[in-house]
Amino acid sequence: MEAVKNNDLWDNRKKQAASWFKDLQTQIIAEFEAIEDELSGTAKKDMEPGRFEMTPWTRADLNNQADTGSDLQGGGQMAVMRGRVFEKVGVNFSEVYGTFSDEFRSQIPGAEADGLFWAAGISLVAHMQSPLVPAVHMNTRMIVTSKSWFGGGADLTPMVPDDADTADFHAALKANCDAHNPQYYQEHKAWADRYFFLPHRNEPRGVGGTFFDYLDSGDWEADFSYTRGTGLAFKDIYPQLVRRHMNDDWSAEQREHQLIRRGRYAEFNLIYDRGTKFGLMSGGNTDAILMSMPPEVKWP
Amino acid sequence: MEAVKNNDLWDNRKKQAASWFKDLQTQIIAEFEAIEDELSGTAKKDMEPGRFEMTPWTRADLNNQADTGSDLQGGGQMAVMRGRVFEKVGVNFSEVYGTFSDEFRSQIPGAEADGLFWAAGISLVAHMQSPLVPAVHMNTRMIVTSKSWFGGGADLTPMVPDDADTADFHAALKANCDAHNPQYYQEHKAWADRYFFLPHRNEPRGVGGTFFDYLDSGDWEADFSYTRGTGLAFKDIYPQLVRRHMNDDWSAEQREHQLIRRGRYAEFNLIYDRGTKFGLMSGGNTDAILMSMPPEVKWP
Repeated sequence: MEAVKNNDLWDNRKKQAASWFKDLQTQIIAEFEAIEDELSGTAKKDMEPGRFEMTPWTRADLNNQADTGSDLQGGGQMAVMRGRVFEKVGVNFSEVYGTFSDEFRSQIPGAEADGLFWAAGISLVAHMQSPLVPAVHMNTRMIVTSKSWFGGGADLTPMVPDDADTADFHAALKANCDAHNPQYYQEHKAWADRYFFLPHRNEPRGVGGTFFDYLDSGDWEADFSYTRGTGLAFKDIYPQLVRRHMNDDWSAEQREHQLIRRGRYAEFNLIYDRGTKFGLMSGGNTDAILMSMPPEVKWP
Repeated sequence: MEAVKNNDLWDNRKKQAASWFKDLQTQIIAEFEAIEDELSGTAKKDMEPGRFEMTPWTRADLNNQADTGSDLQGGGQMAVMRGRVFEKVGVNFSEVYGTFSDEFRSQIPGAEADGLFWAAGISLVAHMQSPLVPAVHMNTRMIVTSKSWFGGGADLTPMVPDDADTADFHAALKANCDAHNPQYYQEHKAWADRYFFLPHRNEPRGVGGTFFDYLDSGDWEADFSYTRGTGLAFKDIYPQLVRRHMNDDWSAEQREHQLIRRGRYAEFNLIYDRGTKFGLMSGGNTDAILMSMPPEVKWP
């Protein structure tokens, strides 16, 4: 296997993947802004519908990230909306490349020898005004070193559990899994259950979903299709769950419960989440990475 | 050096240290409750003065901590007050002992061979109603494996910086340092500046103070005296700073700023703080460890 996948085949694949992640970001932004317009109930309905604020960034402009000795280039497009349905939602696209420092390259498969890497992806976290609407996370990415793979998944964190929501969310992801490999749903659901878990609380973060990493079946087209399908399954089902509950009134107790549950979300992101930790430690864009933090949290 | 310090000399030292940490907890609780009674200004003055809620715990009763394969015994006394000056303050005493699992013993000096350890300490974090009153942390502890040492320190996190507060806080710690070793202040202040720092933000957590660990000068009595002095310096100066500002009105903007700055505090505790991380990973008491989290936080 070549040391770096710098050839027409891989240049084209990188271009296709980055282009898809950016396109998905655009599609999701349009859908979420439409939801903001549709709100007709709850105390929040008199607020202005939210709109995404777009912040393009390049690595050259960053000055608040850790200095790690890595040589990182590229950039991304942060998109954040503070709305009347979506209290805070970040939908970030990034495409970065360069050379990891000696310290980090040993942690990245295929980067041990020269540290060279390329990565693009979309990362989304939504914290909702209503405690009746589940919080959600979705992230898909393609990584290239001397190896290449896809990773990602989507998982749901209801504050007020709802069996139908959970079943429908899992079913949407399962349909994409089953369309690609009969083993994927079982494996990637179990991976999410293991991953989205807080050992120090002995509790799951939410009701799970799917999680996969280092996906390289040998058929790049199939892996890319499965990765796209994860994003599309999310984009199909999550807006349905939002519309199902967003106009229902909630109680002060439910809101308080939501703020406390968000503390668990914050604990998971800062203590365990590999993307967050690795991103912060390797000199990633702090603002983009921590866009996932809940807007308001209580540890009473 | 003996494998475990199980003899009369060390049994007596452990007893002295544990007894001191518990006594200091009692003294601080009395002082903080007195401050609650004294409040005469601000919108909070019509609230009832806060009182500490005491929760004794033993390791045998815990069921929400990570299962690590270590054999841990002992327990502690959590003390938390949700008051009108102290929005949330935890003053925890603990004395734990046992055998670390193979995974953890390599991380503890002197425990590599048999995993045996004993530890006692007091840990305090105060998050204040008023953004004009600095948040604070103080922690002192004694650890025994086949080695023994003291660790601890105190550091101040003003939300609205005040030069006099900062100078007075440093001066109180310096007086204790200087009474024990002419090098301590410079060394332990520099250690705090290095330690209480968020690389991913390229920001200090607050204005620092002192931090020391693995303190074993060869004179146990002197090290114990320095450790006690750290706690006493804290107990002398911090209440002065609280009383200096607690009756002053604050603005909504200052409160919002405080809630955002608390986000940095939460990030530090969950990403970097060694006591928090090690405590959670090694199967410590999650409730006691996370008593340090701010009661209300914003990541807007």
